[in-house]
This record gives sequence, C-alpha cells and structure tokens, in this order.
Amino acid sequence: MVSNNQRKQILQLKQKKYRLSSGYFVAEGEKVVEEILSASWECVFLFSTVPNFFPKTVLVNTAEMIKITHFKSPSPVLGVFKFPDAIFPIISNITIAVDGVSDPGNLGTLIRLCDWFGLSELICSSSTVDCFNSKVVQASMGSIVRVQCRYEKDLSTTLRDLKKPIYSADFGGESLYSSSFSEQATIVFGSESHGISAEIDEIVNHKISIPNFRKGRGAESLNVAIAGAIFLSEIFRGR
Amino acid sequence: MVSNNQRKQILQLKQKKYRLSSGYFVAEGEKVVEEILSASWECVFLFSTVPNFFPKTVLVNTAEMIKITHFKSPSPVLGVFKFPDAIFPIISNITIAVDGVSDPGNLGTLIRLCDWFGLSELICSSSTVDCFNSKVVQASMGSIVRVQCRYEKDLSTTLRDLKKPIYSADFGGESLYSSSFSEQATIVFGSESHGISAEIDEIVNHKISIPNFRKGRGAESLNVAIAGAIFLSEIFRGR
Repeated sequence: MVSNNQRKQILQLKQKKYRLSSGYFVAEGEKVVEEILSASWECVFLFSTVPNFFPKTVLVNTAEMIKITHFKSPSPVLGVFKFPDAIFPIISNITIAVDGVSDPGNLGTLIRLCDWFGLSELICSSSTVDCFNSKVVQASMGSIVRVQCRYEKDLSTTLRDLKKPIYSADFGGESLYSSSFSEQATIVFGSESHGISAEIDEIVNHKISIPNFRKGRGAESLNVAIAGAIFLSEIFRGR
Repeated sequence: MVSNNQRKQILQLKQKKYRLSSGYFVAEGEKVVEEILSASWECVFLFSTVPNFFPKTVLVNTAEMIKITHFKSPSPVLGVFKFPDAIFPIISNITIAVDGVSDPGNLGTLIRLCDWFGLSELICSSSTVDCFNSKVVQASMGSIVRVQCRYEKDLSTTLRDLKKPIYSADFGGESLYSSSFSEQATIVFGSESHGISAEIDEIVNHKISIPNFRKGRGAESLNVAIAGAIFLSEIFRGR
C-alpha cells in the first residue's frame, strides 16, 4: 500500500524545488529502476505491481500506481531514490556540454548517447532541464547512473577552464564531414529554440554544422538529440 | 467558432480507422501547418488562436483549441487536411525501410531525417505506426510533405523486388564504421522492442551494428531514431 504521505511526497517530486530540498527523485520503469538499483543508489521507496521485483518492494495494484506515477500511463515499477553522492569533474579527451536544452526527452537521449560512446560526464548550463526530472531519467534508460550531469552556473568559464578547443553545433558552420576534431575537444550543443547563448558563442573556436543533403526547400533543422548522435558518431568513428 | 460537428470529427481523427474512412488527418503547430499549406495539400478546416495566420483561418480562443487538440497542450494552429494524392514508388540509390516501428515520435523523427538526407520515400511495414497519426505529423516537423511513407503489406517481397543489397541495423552485426555500403542499398530498421521480423531477417544480406564505446556494462541499445541518424550520417558522409 502507498500511504497518503508517500503519495503526496512522490507527486511533489515532480517539481525541481522539492527534489532539491529533499534530495530525492523518482524513477519509473523496470529497466530504469533495475539500472539504478544495480548501481547501488540509495532507494527510499520501491513500489511494484509485479510480485518479487526486488527484495523489500511494496506490492501495489495498478489503481495505486496510477495515483503516484509522474506519467500519463503508469509503469509496473516506481522507485524513489536519493541523489548520488557529490560529484567531481571527470577528465576525458572529449567533453560534451549542453547550453539550455529544455526538453527532458532530448536531455535523457543525450545522456544515453554519452553512455553509449563511453563518456561519463555531461556538463550542463543551469538553464538546462534538471537531469533528475522523471522524464529525463526515463529517457536516459538508466544511463543516468553512468553519466553524471554537472550543472554549472557559469558555463563559459567552466568550458574555458578545460583549456581544450571548443566546437559548437551551429547551422552556419563548417561541414561536420570535412572538419577534424582535435584529440582533446569540447563540443557544445545549444537549446532547441535559441541555439547557443551569446556568452558561449564568444568562446567557441569552431562552428560545425551537419550538411543538409536536400537540395532546395527541406527540413530546416534536426533536433538536438539527433544532432548529438551524428556528432558523437563522427567524432568517435575514427578513435 | 468550432461547431460541435467539427469538434467531433477532429477528435475522431485520432483514430486510424476514421482517418482512413474520411481521408483526412490533423496537423498541429504553426511550423507543421505552414509546411503543409506551402505544399498545397488540400485544407479542410483551419483554426488558429492567432489572427491572420492564413487566409480563411477561423479564429478561435484557447478554450476551444483545448477541446479539439490531439495533444496535452494545444498549439496556436490546428488544421485538418486531406491525404495527398495516390503515391507511387520513388527510385533512389538509398532506400530506407522500417519494420514495425511503433512509436510515433520515432517514426516522425525518421521522416525528418530522410528529408534532411534528401530522401523522398520511406517504406513502412503495415505493422508500423500510421504516418498520419498527429504525433507522427508533429514529430516530422512538416517533413511529411517531402517524404512519402509507402506502407507495404508484404515488406519482404517489396524490398527483394528493389534488387539492391539489403542491410539491417542489428546489434550482433559488423561495425558500421568498417562496413561499406554499396552505391545502391536498402537499409531496414526494426521495431523498438522486437527488432527486425523473422521474415525480413531472412532477406537481409548484411547485418550492421553501431559499436558501443563503453567498456563493460553500459547502455544496451540506442533508440531507432538515433540509430537511423547515425546510419544515415555514415552512409551520406562520403557521397
């Protein structure tokens, strides 16, 4: 059974301010919850409509799950977890940063992509959607446990301090296919609607774009997760 | 004003059977509706909360728009359009096919990707989500007017009849980065949950996979739209 208090708390966790004040977030879906449990992140509550999902899981019925889900349709499993321990910068040749990405699905997909390409950190401007938003957690498919999102108030200083050439995904840039990325590189992706902010634009060394193969009028843009996929593939294909 | 009859009809168009029986579909969002109008697809009704969106637009208020939208939140513009004229196969060097893709966002994104890479046709198994589903139309961002989705009951015969080498996106395949695609090629993507069907698997000549760069436990898969982006980029980068 889900107590009234638990239900209230779980629904409050839809809001970033409650996640920050409690240090808790919600994860839904068997695959995602399993990934977080495997990573031994501290579990506060665990509810499931399927018996024996995990030791100490509270068995609930679908009607109860509907009342606590953060989604339109409930998953068979919902867990409340504590944020992981304090994070520290991770050094790697390739750094990916996002500047104002607001769609949870896009951020989650980018986290999953970083995981796929072996990156363990994603640097986010503070204007980027919170990585512990349930939709981000779900879209990451659990990759959130292997890719830490480091939020930085002053993204431009953070990126400059990495002392690596900075590339941005930009529609007016040089072709991705004729560019070569240096061994150590930072790549920044801008927001879905406004692109890279003026502050970041100032510190970018190379603007790179994905060529559009349609002659004449065609798709005007690609979404940021798709652009991220194409950039990461191009960067890592030769490594 | 939206009449009761119009409202009823628009809401019925959420269902494929009503789209098929009427030959109508719904498009929402300024960008998407503008693309369809520019392509001169026949417009049946056009509602907007912003004045002077287009000649003959019926001005409505947000409360009315909320009653007719197919989405959680309404857009400023909603149009009902007639299906385009009968479609005919389009010959091109690269053919993309999807076998059972069920998520509307994924299909819409794949349509947008085909548009970006200059492809005007996407061949779909009949188990694939309907391309005139409002969510597909929206995710395509209007690219649906330049990329025709050809649904085939017998996908394997259709693909075999193209007489081009058939490649599939498959987790157990050869690395995408060490594969070379023939000048003329068909590439098939399977469903999100079940991959390629047994029937299609039989006619595939080359199984290709995107290498996972994470050593040890990592993301187990990429979504089909992301895989499509990486494949298309790799195929077209040298063309």
